Amino acid sequence: MKLPAIDTARTIEHLTGWLRARFADAGFTQALLGLSGGIDSSVSAALAARALGPENVWGILMPYRTSTPESVEDATALVEMLGIHSFTEDISPQIDLYFEDHADADPLRRGNKMARERMTILYDHSKRLSALVVGTGNRTEALLGYTTMFGDNACALNPIGEFLKTEIRQLGAALNLPERILTKPPSADLWAGQTDEEELGLTYDEVDPLLVAMFDQDKSRRELIAAGFAEAVIDRTASLVLANAWKRKPPPVAPRAE
Amino acid sequence: MKLPAIDTARTIEHLTGWLRARFADAGFTQALLGLSGGIDSSVSAALAARALGPENVWGILMPYRTSTPESVEDATALVEMLGIHSFTEDISPQIDLYFEDHADADPLRRGNKMARERMTILYDHSKRLSALVVGTGNRTEALLGYTTMFGDNACALNPIGEFLKTEIRQLGAALNLPERILTKPPSADLWAGQTDEEELGLTYDEVDPLLVAMFDQDKSRRELIAAGFAEAVIDRTASLVLANAWKRKPPPVAPRAE
Repeated sequence: MKLPAIDTARTIEHLTGWLRARFADAGFTQALLGLSGGIDSSVSAALAARALGPENVWGILMPYRTSTPESVEDATALVEMLGIHSFTEDISPQIDLYFEDHADADPLRRGNKMARERMTILYDHSKRLSALVVGTGNRTEALLGYTTMFGDNACALNPIGEFLKTEIRQLGAALNLPERILTKPPSADLWAGQTDEEELGLTYDEVDPLLVAMFDQDKSRRELIAAGFAEAVIDRTASLVLANAWKRKPPPVAPRAE
Repeated sequence: MKLPAIDTARTIEHLTGWLRARFADAGFTQALLGLSGGIDSSVSAALAARALGPENVWGILMPYRTSTPESVEDATALVEMLGIHSFTEDISPQIDLYFEDHADADPLRRGNKMARERMTILYDHSKRLSALVVGTGNRTEALLGYTTMFGDNACALNPIGEFLKTEIRQLGAALNLPERILTKPPSADLWAGQTDEEELGLTYDEVDPLLVAMFDQDKSRRELIAAGFAEAVIDRTASLVLANAWKRKPPPVAPRAE
């Protein structure tokens, strides 16, 4: 199954208008976001630059010492292409300091701590610059729960959160992002050679149409199979969606009485 | 104006039942929370200990080097009284390291970074211990926005979020918390002598009935004045409530099209 292509020109127009309106409503002129060198943050940055003017957008690079040099290079190329402000905050010192006392922590704990450290830095500069934090999370990762709660999913507003990963790629191409950003395999860049698709056990090309069939078309398991989705892919997707449902709703608060 | 006292025995029964049910639903047996030595986290800890058994509750003390020694003493007294597990994570090294490069940061930025650092530590141990993070925020501070977004207001579930500060005090007394926790002035403990009420420019005794009149009884400004609320208090409260409305809703996400 393949999803229909989105109307990128119209969508970019709509999203830049939406960003402009939200910033005006909130009384802010400056936008701030973390740049990983990946496609999602690059698309968000390009939209913000179009909406608000590049002189009002701040991209922060927050590498850890094991981040691939390509990530920083790609983010830097984007900054130059867009003409936005940028600066770098190396998160290694404080992360390493913390894990000195927690040497047994696995890569998942380390990756989550890094994602949350980046959030704390973004919000610190958000205050300093009176700038709103623009979200960089897409719909695919939100539905699969492939995000760190209060980490990379924390933002003041998100222009791309309703778009699937394969749609973000179309937006990126229409925004003329650097070729390397458009073509490299998506990765959280927590260790050398890590890719989203390997970690998820799913490819974006197969999971995006499945998510639409499950969530927007409410298809039953039988219908999904009839439509050609592999059972293993359906099961893996359903299990991720269910296990991470809590990330998509506000935390429950006890009512005052029964 | 004075609010009616709450039925503390019934409320404690209800909240412990709610906690037990939520933990069972989520498939967790262990609870984790940050202990500041203040009344809110003490009440949440006491409720969690009653609901799940003290052997299943972990209190983490996360002082900064300027935290008053009394905060740690009070949290320690609570841990001993409840018989829960506890350990300490001093956040000073990584906070000081970060602000070495941001020496111009004001106390608000420093306090927010600390609150968010504590969140990252709680969630790291949440993963390590397979324990849910129990919230410690009350309704008064949520309505006034006297919280750090993605910091002290981050949690998996919150037993006390619908209760006003003056009601939390009643619950604390009914739970037989240590006298010093019940009587000390509420403080975020970011600098010596800081108190919530001075920083807010409002006392909890005056603002809690006002919040009920505004939010639960929908009273107009004229009715509020007729009910005896001072105009300065109404204005200050309304201004805080409005300025922090964004903290009480999920971040807006752009729709796919107009």
